[in-house]
Amino acid sequence: MKISILGYGTIGSGVYEIAKANKIEIVKVLDLRDLDVPELTKDFNDVLNSDSDTVVETMGGEHPAYEFVKQCLEAGKNVVTSNKALVAAFGEDLIAAAKAHNVQFLFEASVGGGIPIIHVITECLRCDEITRVSGILNGTTNYILTQMDLNGVSFEEALKEAQRLGYAEADPSADVDGWDTCRKTAILGWLISGHMPDYKMIPTEGITKITKADIDSAKAEGKVIKLLGVVEKTPDGLRASVKPTVIGRDNELYAVSDVMNAILVESKYMGKSMYYGPGAGKLPTAAAVIADVLRTTPAAQG
Amino acid sequence: MKISILGYGTIGSGVYEIAKANKIEIVKVLDLRDLDVPELTKDFNDVLNSDSDTVVETMGGEHPAYEFVKQCLEAGKNVVTSNKALVAAFGEDLIAAAKAHNVQFLFEASVGGGIPIIHVITECLRCDEITRVSGILNGTTNYILTQMDLNGVSFEEALKEAQRLGYAEADPSADVDGWDTCRKTAILGWLISGHMPDYKMIPTEGITKITKADIDSAKAEGKVIKLLGVVEKTPDGLRASVKPTVIGRDNELYAVSDVMNAILVESKYMGKSMYYGPGAGKLPTAAAVIADVLRTTPAAQG
Repeated sequence: MKISILGYGTIGSGVYEIAKANKIEIVKVLDLRDLDVPELTKDFNDVLNSDSDTVVETMGGEHPAYEFVKQCLEAGKNVVTSNKALVAAFGEDLIAAAKAHNVQFLFEASVGGGIPIIHVITECLRCDEITRVSGILNGTTNYILTQMDLNGVSFEEALKEAQRLGYAEADPSADVDGWDTCRKTAILGWLISGHMPDYKMIPTEGITKITKADIDSAKAEGKVIKLLGVVEKTPDGLRASVKPTVIGRDNELYAVSDVMNAILVESKYMGKSMYYGPGAGKLPTAAAVIADVLRTTPAAQG
Repeated sequence: MKISILGYGTIGSGVYEIAKANKIEIVKVLDLRDLDVPELTKDFNDVLNSDSDTVVETMGGEHPAYEFVKQCLEAGKNVVTSNKALVAAFGEDLIAAAKAHNVQFLFEASVGGGIPIIHVITECLRCDEITRVSGILNGTTNYILTQMDLNGVSFEEALKEAQRLGYAEADPSADVDGWDTCRKTAILGWLISGHMPDYKMIPTEGITKITKADIDSAKAEGKVIKLLGVVEKTPDGLRASVKPTVIGRDNELYAVSDVMNAILVESKYMGKSMYYGPGAGKLPTAAAVIADVLRTTPAAQG
């Protein structure tokens, strides 16, 4: 098994580390920076023309990730990605390209970080009928809400602490405005309905307007506020939303704190099941990428 | 895809129902009772000589399940089972027989009912190094402990209620003495170590000696008592135990109530992850069986 890696950032370097530990051969690493990595190249064509069976895309963002991934699939290489922006925007197109070229396009790490939720939904619950999926899908906002709840700090204070700890970026809007959760919610909606919702059409509310008073009022009833992404099958089709939601102890997501993520699945035969773990981070996310790499089969290669 | 089913009890009839819903052809159903099932036979040889690709074993118990399963594997048929007694006692032998005949022996439903814990450990966390697995693996005892905690009833009263609701059997000893949890713990130990521990050698303590005073004393500290099966890799090899354990809110298993099960996995890359769902019951367990059936591949057949 031979792989190349597009983007040697946090996740990409984690993939490199775990691939080596699992004796997976790394052919090329694409990154524009001058890095001390023996497999480094700054030219995408070196990856495209290499003998990698599978290309791992950990650059993030829609472009040029989309163009690179599409060319790899068309060249008969499997692609594994952790890039939710890519999957939410182009998932259907890329799956079609993978099928047309008899290769695989896998994206376990794009939702829930290390949590194997994509595999659970597409494989383990394949015989079941999933009716609703609700999840805490963003560690940054869950950390902020947890701090507001436990320590009585304001949104701004909790955000600053999250930035200090490296849980939130300098520009935190993708997280706190709910767009990260929104993209992951769109992907979950795709998996349970077979049709990718336009993530820009999902009603999305972030956590920037949550006040200490909101938290206290939930707390007085023994409840907490969580930013939930929800997809649900209804007689009128798929319904999706992202918003801060007051939940009580009877909700399995109640105790999911700090940067942890969890996804609650409701289905006809299983009833309720929940999958919990680190929703981000170098090694958990990279482990999910490598799990996908190990799922690719030479038989599937074009 | 053609299957036969050994044993048309609770799980077997659930497998029948979900197989039909998934358009899986059922060839034979073995049961000694006079049942109104078109595929019924009372003669195991009818299954062995049928053209089933896969045989589902839902009889329970070690014998004659072992002899039947072994003969099916030797005849080049995949076997899927929900039978933890069979797997704990003969798992290594049956995996070897499956390999020798180029077929699959799958047992997702033998631990955690509908929770896909076997698949998560053997596939999704394949690149990781699991160091410890702890779980609430028996719904009956978790129901009893939850009732004692919430309603202040004695063990005997909670057991009676569990029997009335059908959660506990007339002879509840396999559950309340910890042997059901012990067998599942042995299977988890096998999966993380590659060697099946002798379940009879695992120190096993049930919940029959838990008093209201024990529960109250835990409660006073904001804690609960749970029957945990634990396997852990140590420098001296695999350590396994089954015993009632006092846990606090910081333990992910704290909120797992009533008949629900959950398994907490600790691993090098992922850190902590948890898998939660119904640990028993006709349809959840049968859905896990069918998930295994769908994993069998014609290519694997002998």
